[in-house]
Amino acid sequence: MARWEPDARERLADAALALFREKSYEAVTVTQITERAGLTRASYFRHFADKREAVFAGQDLIVDLIHQAIADAPETAGPRDLLDAALDAVAVAFTPERHANAATRQAIIDSDPELRERLTAKRAAIADAFTAALLDRGLPAPTARVAGQLGQLAFTTASQRWAAAPDGTGFSAYARSALDAAVTAAAALAGR
Amino acid sequence: MARWEPDARERLADAALALFREKSYEAVTVTQITERAGLTRASYFRHFADKREAVFAGQDLIVDLIHQAIADAPETAGPRDLLDAALDAVAVAFTPERHANAATRQAIIDSDPELRERLTAKRAAIADAFTAALLDRGLPAPTARVAGQLGQLAFTTASQRWAAAPDGTGFSAYARSALDAAVTAAAALAGR
Repeated sequence: MARWEPDARERLADAALALFREKSYEAVTVTQITERAGLTRASYFRHFADKREAVFAGQDLIVDLIHQAIADAPETAGPRDLLDAALDAVAVAFTPERHANAATRQAIIDSDPELRERLTAKRAAIADAFTAALLDRGLPAPTARVAGQLGQLAFTTASQRWAAAPDGTGFSAYARSALDAAVTAAAALAGR
Repeated sequence: MARWEPDARERLADAALALFREKSYEAVTVTQITERAGLTRASYFRHFADKREAVFAGQDLIVDLIHQAIADAPETAGPRDLLDAALDAVAVAFTPERHANAATRQAIIDSDPELRERLTAKRAAIADAFTAALLDRGLPAPTARVAGQLGQLAFTTASQRWAAAPDGTGFSAYARSALDAAVTAAAALAGR
């Protein structure tokens, strides 16, 4: 019977990151991660499908926040307002703890092709979350798809700026300015 | 010593597709693919890194065509002209033979999570090809990144329409109209 395991997901993800940094992503096993976290393999696989997923433990929260923010926005909100609302909402995931680990996490991802491919999948999942939530609001498909990609670009650019900044605050401001730049650049393409 | 093997890459990709359709992606081995194609395992691994890659044999050509078309466009070409030039150039990859296999290929990809993730990576590689080629032309980064995503969306939408059309022609026309729709939708986001 599963015991109640407070913060098991976070403990597993933290243990994985620490071990990947100390050894290498390839050298570490799921068993070693669970030993470090003081949890069982069964517990690991309740939270993550495989070793790789521990590095992307935050994706589900981001996707949920995007869906929720777009679903909950006022009826009068236009497509751009919906993107802004979602980018504001995801800021809660960019905590000081995450900031402290950001460089380590990026170095681990960069070190392994499997993780780099998984990062690409994460970005696609974020674009898809924007697009699906916008389609649920009744937006036409071309608008929802384009807005999904621009939302993802703004999210990615803001994540990188936030990670590189010294203080770990201000995600929303980075996201708003990245979205502005993306929309301005897109609008300019209409003029050839 | 490697013999000269005319069309080895295409023969291997065709054999892989035929076997995946007859059995399933999971059930087929690289050895079976090489036996069907009348080639060696060494030959297979000269062309593809693993089993999965045989399904995406066309990606390198698409990426090369995008780079070349954007590099070769007249100096006066604006960002939108460069996207158009690349989408026109890739049309040569959309052959009648590819059209005949399009539904099979899509069904195989849909059947396996590994292949679905690889398709996501292909789309990202296409967006990256547009973006890198546009950066090489001296476009500012936000424009190149946004244009890369819109180019990829137009490519993906056009591929799907072309695959669904009965005659296997007209890729360029689908691509142009998909790009128009994407750019119009993007421009509308500037107005909230």
